[in-house]
Amino acid sequence: MSVNKEEVLQLFRERIGQIKSYEEALGVLFWDMRTGAPRKGTESRSKAIGVLSSQAFALQTGEDLGQWLTALEQPEILNTLGEVDQRLVTETRKDYDRSVKIPPKLHEEYVILTSEAESFWEQAKETGDYASFQPYLDKIITYTNKFIDLWGAKETRYDTLLDMYEPGITTAELDRVFGGLREKLVPLAAAIAASPHQPDTSFLKQNYDKDAQKKFSKFILEQIGFDFEAGRLDESVHPFATGLSTGDVRITTRYLADDVTSALFGTIHECGHALYEQNIREDLRGTTLCTGTSMGIHESQSRFWENVIGRSRPFWNRYFGNLQELFPGQLDVPVEDFYRATNVVAPSLIRIEADELTYNLHIIIRYEIEKLIFNEGVTAAELPALWNQKYQEYLGITPENDAVGVLQDVHWSGGAFGYFPSYSLGNMYAAQMTETLERELPNVWELVGKGELHPIKDWLTDKVYQYGKLRTPAELITAITGKPLDPQYLVDYLERKYKDIYKL
Amino acid sequence: MSVNKEEVLQLFRERIGQIKSYEEALGVLFWDMRTGAPRKGTESRSKAIGVLSSQAFALQTGEDLGQWLTALEQPEILNTLGEVDQRLVTETRKDYDRSVKIPPKLHEEYVILTSEAESFWEQAKETGDYASFQPYLDKIITYTNKFIDLWGAKETRYDTLLDMYEPGITTAELDRVFGGLREKLVPLAAAIAASPHQPDTSFLKQNYDKDAQKKFSKFILEQIGFDFEAGRLDESVHPFATGLSTGDVRITTRYLADDVTSALFGTIHECGHALYEQNIREDLRGTTLCTGTSMGIHESQSRFWENVIGRSRPFWNRYFGNLQELFPGQLDVPVEDFYRATNVVAPSLIRIEADELTYNLHIIIRYEIEKLIFNEGVTAAELPALWNQKYQEYLGITPENDAVGVLQDVHWSGGAFGYFPSYSLGNMYAAQMTETLERELPNVWELVGKGELHPIKDWLTDKVYQYGKLRTPAELITAITGKPLDPQYLVDYLERKYKDIYKL
Repeated sequence: MSVNKEEVLQLFRERIGQIKSYEEALGVLFWDMRTGAPRKGTESRSKAIGVLSSQAFALQTGEDLGQWLTALEQPEILNTLGEVDQRLVTETRKDYDRSVKIPPKLHEEYVILTSEAESFWEQAKETGDYASFQPYLDKIITYTNKFIDLWGAKETRYDTLLDMYEPGITTAELDRVFGGLREKLVPLAAAIAASPHQPDTSFLKQNYDKDAQKKFSKFILEQIGFDFEAGRLDESVHPFATGLSTGDVRITTRYLADDVTSALFGTIHECGHALYEQNIREDLRGTTLCTGTSMGIHESQSRFWENVIGRSRPFWNRYFGNLQELFPGQLDVPVEDFYRATNVVAPSLIRIEADELTYNLHIIIRYEIEKLIFNEGVTAAELPALWNQKYQEYLGITPENDAVGVLQDVHWSGGAFGYFPSYSLGNMYAAQMTETLERELPNVWELVGKGELHPIKDWLTDKVYQYGKLRTPAELITAITGKPLDPQYLVDYLERKYKDIYKL
Repeated sequence: MSVNKEEVLQLFRERIGQIKSYEEALGVLFWDMRTGAPRKGTESRSKAIGVLSSQAFALQTGEDLGQWLTALEQPEILNTLGEVDQRLVTETRKDYDRSVKIPPKLHEEYVILTSEAESFWEQAKETGDYASFQPYLDKIITYTNKFIDLWGAKETRYDTLLDMYEPGITTAELDRVFGGLREKLVPLAAAIAASPHQPDTSFLKQNYDKDAQKKFSKFILEQIGFDFEAGRLDESVHPFATGLSTGDVRITTRYLADDVTSALFGTIHECGHALYEQNIREDLRGTTLCTGTSMGIHESQSRFWENVIGRSRPFWNRYFGNLQELFPGQLDVPVEDFYRATNVVAPSLIRIEADELTYNLHIIIRYEIEKLIFNEGVTAAELPALWNQKYQEYLGITPENDAVGVLQDVHWSGGAFGYFPSYSLGNMYAAQMTETLERELPNVWELVGKGELHPIKDWLTDKVYQYGKLRTPAELITAITGKPLDPQYLVDYLERKYKDIYKL
């Protein structure tokens, strides 16, 4: 087949740009809905989102795109392409094959099912009535299994789902890393719970002025290096980050009157996501490679800034004075007390409220259950008992009802099976990168103590941010640290930190 | 030709819904850019707007749409359609024919030309250098003449342009109404200028707290009947209103520290636009008829609320106390002084700063010049002299340079010839409707004096808002007032109001 390479490449790049533009437009519509769009506009807005999504899907699955991909994939052409175009071709092929394998009718049914299921989940969660949600969950599992059949099972059926969120990761790999993690963290959490040296957190529960909280959030964002000319900070019920383009990355936070740390660490968390999206290489902009490479790597950046930096002693040695100034008379405690209070570890039922140590156990429970569903055929009916049993085993507590148990997360109602592991992968990637950072920037904690955070941002830009989706997660972590993913780094980090805080 | 009516109608309605969804999405993108989108995202955002606009244009000009229109236009089918579908067919046909007559290449050249021209206009306005802008204006006039040739000249060539903003209006009609207006307003403005009873406005020039201004704007919006569950109020450099759907109508304002009236009347003005868009009939929602019927009728609503109601004596008898409370010690003047100060009439050079009387003269000047350009072949080179001569003749003042003269408005740089008359049409429609309102709701000023404004909103909903684009401007004004557009109502209103204020 003879093709005009330049012409095909141009058509292909143009299509990629169009897909990216639709993603940006849809991103604005979602951001807008979550940050204050008027209630009565929801129906019309949902319709507009549907119309744009359909067109985006049509652009992604067009026969013409398939033909351009086939043409560009010929080795004698592919080898002459630059690294960005090569990667664009392989990434687009992956998405294309996945999308075209789903019959549009099946896809539509699934979209309707999951959007209905989400509202039934909300009701079920409110009343703790799992039985009312169970039939929906059963159907979603059935559809997901159909998709796995159409896409083809990888090493295991569950691997097919994992790959959507963390390209390349497998059940075998997760068994290895989560196994190592669980083995060490369960006894560590137990030792912490038994320690007589529990931090005092009572002073955190006061009425903290919202405007002062806002001021401090903005101040910390500037300190970390968030570019306010390429982003903004707003409020929403559920905090999130969205990268519309490198020049427009938006984060939100939620200010609680009675908890000064919630918005604070939430803001730092979302800032980590934002730094990633703001600092992607110029030549990737306007392409579908201009975003984080995986949920796990993205989460590594939010958790690195929130926990490794934001909950560190040097950080508060530098910034506690600024916080005290904004809340006169409210934080008259030694900085060490504040540091310990923001690093309390305790087994709890709710994932999103968990500390940085037990959080991983919440994830491992979900991972093990998802694996049972897709690899062993466990059904929706069996989940509550399974859930409660694992909470008792790993965290030593049992939910008193399903609302604070198996019903707590939105993910499954939206069909997002395979997503949960990203959170713990993020923690592990972050700890492993930190070890390298400390070697390559030996005075890093001295810099944090002086409030000089930009060298850290620059290091991460050099190692992670700039590449966007140009490198896979495995390529990144190996290139940065010289090793594949290893849970021991997270174990070491947590042991070191909490043995000190709890005087174990 | 045999067609399945139901099937074609369904396809047609679906396409209309898609077009409307694209309009909503683009509306959100524009609103977002003007209310705080980060600077560095502009380039990417402009690209996204371009991609979506192209797709919207494709949906509007598709051959399939032309075929559906032809099928539905067959009398034996058209006559069986409901009034909404009939009107949708005729309105869509009008837009379709206009759009498909322009070769895409010519359209693209024009889009590039006008977007370049706007930045050259900005520079020229800054330096007052008309010569640097003149070649662009010449080209835009040339392109506009090409479009008139392609669309076909109506009664006069300029009529073709007028019809885009005010369907059905003609040069003959405007000559009649503007002639009547000019004849009466020029001597009235002169008499006002000569009056020894000039209002004192010095107390308006103070430092007014922005938060208090914001509070009052929100309060007044609630009083008038703006639905905050179907809209929101934000800030932008140039205030505007945008109706994304009836459930999501957004207005913006601009708070000036040294002028408490700017944001106040600006907010009321935009609220008038918003009430129109929020109160369109349910069965028009999601269609392209779900918006104001013309720029002139739209402007009649913003000006009715801003000037007829908002600058009336009963309105301030009711609300001045609320305003005084928000600015303690700053507005210790009798309400009559405040009323007169907000109704100062004085000839000035800048249209957007003009009072409600001389404003019309600014418009008549622009109308007469546009008519000369398209009906008499006057060129860009002749405009500054023409402009200055007319300002001297109608307003008794001559611009000292082109920045405050012929270069002041953005409209021509964007090719919006034919738009200016809408503003004065709005004033005339508003005055004519007011006369009917006073007859049908005899206690209307008593209600205003008591702050009971909702009956006025309800009357306008009944007469104007509900119909969206279902009625033409001429149909509306005749149905409401029993007469076609008559400038005498505006003349009477202005004479009555200002003879009182200036004791003529």
